[in-house]
Amino acid sequence: MKKMDVFAENGFKDATFSNFLVHESEFMKVINFNFRAGQTLPVHSHDIEGELTITVLQGEGEFLGADNAAIPAKPGNVLISAIATPHGIRATTDMRVLVAIAPPI
Amino acid sequence: MKKMDVFAENGFKDATFSNFLVHESEFMKVINFNFRAGQTLPVHSHDIEGELTITVLQGEGEFLGADNAAIPAKPGNVLISAIATPHGIRATTDMRVLVAIAPPI
Repeated sequence: MKKMDVFAENGFKDATFSNFLVHESEFMKVINFNFRAGQTLPVHSHDIEGELTITVLQGEGEFLGADNAAIPAKPGNVLISAIATPHGIRATTDMRVLVAIAPPI
Repeated sequence: MKKMDVFAENGFKDATFSNFLVHESEFMKVINFNFRAGQTLPVHSHDIEGELTITVLQGEGEFLGADNAAIPAKPGNVLISAIATPHGIRATTDMRVLVAIAPPI
């Protein structure tokens, strides 16, 4: 059992989003991404089995998908996606999200 | 790909904590628990393989463990625990958490 304080552990970068590995095991991988307003995690996918969740912790933006899909994203929103389905994030304010991947990539 | 708005989907109950199944698949199970101040998810464990994360979305309280362990819990805090390790939650204010379990119970 371990506690991670992702607000304390991970800040923001001006050049690009800031990512922080929260946890990795045989069961799951957890990553915190922080975005300055305007920063983007481009739409991408991996041709493997499994799912991921993207949970908005602070700030607002959009969950991105195939064909220029953009779904509003705010605190309390959770996106669930297959790892093989195109997904991404765009921040409209400074934004912190937590990504959980199972099984881990 | 689906988006869940757990703040909109799940409220609070006076009698006990309110739980809401966000997602369940062969890869993971995601549950949102909301606690009124003072409500508790008692310490428990399951003798199976796997891990869980507990992410505080709003409010404050404590992550509970074996031997009366109580670890302060606030937004941005993520607890990682084996499913087989005793774990629980106590809220000191109204509190919303997201639990992800992989593989799903």
